[in-house]
Amino acid sequence: MTEVFDAVDVIRAKRDRQSLSAGQIHWVVDAYTRGVVADEQMSALAMAILLNGMDRDEISRWTAAMIASGERMDFSRLSRPTSDKHSTGGVGDKITLPLAPLVAACGVAVPQLSGRGLGHTGGTLDKLESVPGWCASLSNEEMMRQLEEVGAVICAAGDGLAPADKRLYALRDVTGTVEAIPLIASSIMSKKIAEGTGALVLDVKVGSGAFMKDTESARELARTMVGLGQDAGLTTVALLTNMQTPLGLTAGNALEVRESVEVLAGGGPPDVVELTVTLAREMLAAAGRDDVDPADALRDGRAMDVWRAMIRAQGGDPDADLPVAKETHQVLAPADGVLVSLDALGVGVAAWRLGAGRARKEDRVQAGAGVEMHAKPGAEVRGGQPLLTLHTDTPDRFPRALEALEGAFQIAPEGARPGLLPLVIDRIA
Amino acid sequence: MTEVFDAVDVIRAKRDRQSLSAGQIHWVVDAYTRGVVADEQMSALAMAILLNGMDRDEISRWTAAMIASGERMDFSRLSRPTSDKHSTGGVGDKITLPLAPLVAACGVAVPQLSGRGLGHTGGTLDKLESVPGWCASLSNEEMMRQLEEVGAVICAAGDGLAPADKRLYALRDVTGTVEAIPLIASSIMSKKIAEGTGALVLDVKVGSGAFMKDTESARELARTMVGLGQDAGLTTVALLTNMQTPLGLTAGNALEVRESVEVLAGGGPPDVVELTVTLAREMLAAAGRDDVDPADALRDGRAMDVWRAMIRAQGGDPDADLPVAKETHQVLAPADGVLVSLDALGVGVAAWRLGAGRARKEDRVQAGAGVEMHAKPGAEVRGGQPLLTLHTDTPDRFPRALEALEGAFQIAPEGARPGLLPLVIDRIA
Repeated sequence: MTEVFDAVDVIRAKRDRQSLSAGQIHWVVDAYTRGVVADEQMSALAMAILLNGMDRDEISRWTAAMIASGERMDFSRLSRPTSDKHSTGGVGDKITLPLAPLVAACGVAVPQLSGRGLGHTGGTLDKLESVPGWCASLSNEEMMRQLEEVGAVICAAGDGLAPADKRLYALRDVTGTVEAIPLIASSIMSKKIAEGTGALVLDVKVGSGAFMKDTESARELARTMVGLGQDAGLTTVALLTNMQTPLGLTAGNALEVRESVEVLAGGGPPDVVELTVTLAREMLAAAGRDDVDPADALRDGRAMDVWRAMIRAQGGDPDADLPVAKETHQVLAPADGVLVSLDALGVGVAAWRLGAGRARKEDRVQAGAGVEMHAKPGAEVRGGQPLLTLHTDTPDRFPRALEALEGAFQIAPEGARPGLLPLVIDRIA
Repeated sequence: MTEVFDAVDVIRAKRDRQSLSAGQIHWVVDAYTRGVVADEQMSALAMAILLNGMDRDEISRWTAAMIASGERMDFSRLSRPTSDKHSTGGVGDKITLPLAPLVAACGVAVPQLSGRGLGHTGGTLDKLESVPGWCASLSNEEMMRQLEEVGAVICAAGDGLAPADKRLYALRDVTGTVEAIPLIASSIMSKKIAEGTGALVLDVKVGSGAFMKDTESARELARTMVGLGQDAGLTTVALLTNMQTPLGLTAGNALEVRESVEVLAGGGPPDVVELTVTLAREMLAAAGRDDVDPADALRDGRAMDVWRAMIRAQGGDPDADLPVAKETHQVLAPADGVLVSLDALGVGVAAWRLGAGRARKEDRVQAGAGVEMHAKPGAEVRGGQPLLTLHTDTPDRFPRALEALEGAFQIAPEGARPGLLPLVIDRIA
């Protein structure tokens, strides 16, 4: 890359609704990574991209430039194919925990580089860190060995993958430019492509608890990401799934690990089981293994065996007791009737305020904090029965958590039917 | 001002086409001045303003916030009314030099805080600094005394006036957000209102050599600024004037001082004389003195007397020889015919490249450098006669200056009539 551009010219071009050339995009991403393009220039460009958009070629070039900013992993030496999943984030979304060992148990390796939570959606690493001894950091060699021996790894992404994305994401977070579909799509896909997985299934959440509140934006994001995956030669499929209400019956780190282990033991809430198996089928099919039924591996305990090996390989004790919060508070049903709604955002914000999530990157999370749900929409409830149990080590957090839950659930007279979206809303391939 | 906002919320509001409240605007401008809002946040906001616009109330609040970021001058103690002029900048635009003494000679004080040039348009202070001994920096007390005693002052704006504008302008310059009419208008008007002049005449240039290339944008900018002035209780008038071709026969610092002195001596190019007298009439009328004819003060030498006093009051010697460039190069007419165009941008860039302007704020300008024109559009020329003389101390600059002049003038067969815009295109009050 020898061509040099002027940052102001690149910003002006996007500002004036021009399509940026491959040279301009590679230069600006590379120069930003090197500190030649300043934060204030990149944030102006990000705002212009948010408001004026980028076409498919531009997004593809932008993603390629982000990948080129760092290292690329390569799992082609492994003895089995690889497949990964990415969720855009939701409340109670612990699916990765049972999913990764389940897919590995079916003969496809899962190299999942994951993140920590910020805001009301939890992070997979925060959840697993509630398992005593478990460690999120692995070297590339350790990751490769675990993939070969165990078949599944969930660990922190190293600094070497798409460093431009890391810097750009932090910038977008403070400049009101997070909500740009081209930038969201290229941020997610650059990391997944650089990670080196052979196939990818995207779980694009839609609803109050998700980043995308409506189906149309979620579909646009899904289409953009599937296009980027395909352009990069990666088998990519996206499911649009319901995030109006939380997934399963728990939102919070150790609470969600417990529920995941229940699923691996053959039990667990039906929606978590359904989504885990559906996504496992997609991941296996994308890796060329549509001959295997993941439901079998869940039923016969093979998925649980991989889970235990996976936790142990990263220093964790799968038999240790999980942390429990010091204090609980119950929210009771105010009347007899049918629970017609339980809002994902309300529950997510309550769990966050109880200590399950962080407001700033530097914050620590409480392993035991969160919200346990005793009924899901559609269930009949009796006045006075527990609807929710709030968990925290710091009871002064209860009032603010309860505030977040005001209006977050609705009970209708008996016989009412909640208007629920299906769990899987659409599939884009 | 006790209300505190979140920078990201303010950016998002404008990004989503909402109107910003007075509280939001005052907070964000004040917080930016104090360094609480970061450059990368302000540049994202500036891009959102550029692309989504601001309504009249928002622009008025933004301007008020910029004024409130610094000190305000007050000339109400002066024994005469004050009137000032601001030009949006053009090639060969030396009008301030004869205009300020001319208006002062008619009994209205001119407190002109001026700037240096950046890019292809020259700065008034750069021009005056070619007068041996002349000094641009005055304290507020010195400025007030000179206004009382001489009636006109042209000096550098202190750091105390609208400091938010200074910081914001530098930011916009490197982030592709200069071309936002709300920000251009509030930048100009905040300084002029803080300066404390009682009346203001805006010379909004239109054409290739101006910031505004077309009449419609220029008219929008003019209307916005006149509205801001009126909202601030300032008598404000705007003229839209032609900048397709340079003003007068010179572009360059000492060259333009020489031409200005010719105008003050009763000679000079007709367009410079016409625009000077027209603007003087507007400035006098805006200050309530439409009973005086500035043409008289130009004819009888009173304006020249004020010029000499004004230069002397700031340490300059009005009788000293002006600097002359070491080297010249002539551009000859290629054929007989009528000069139908002489492009302002081409001449401006040539003068800039010869050393009359600066590419970066830190650069020094050459006092003698610039372009001298021997014919203006409409004139008949003979093949081989000098059209332009280029002046510089550094002859290695000639080739790049000549490049800028390629295609910048056109000679048509005899009898052709150039399609010239009038000097004054419109008046907005």
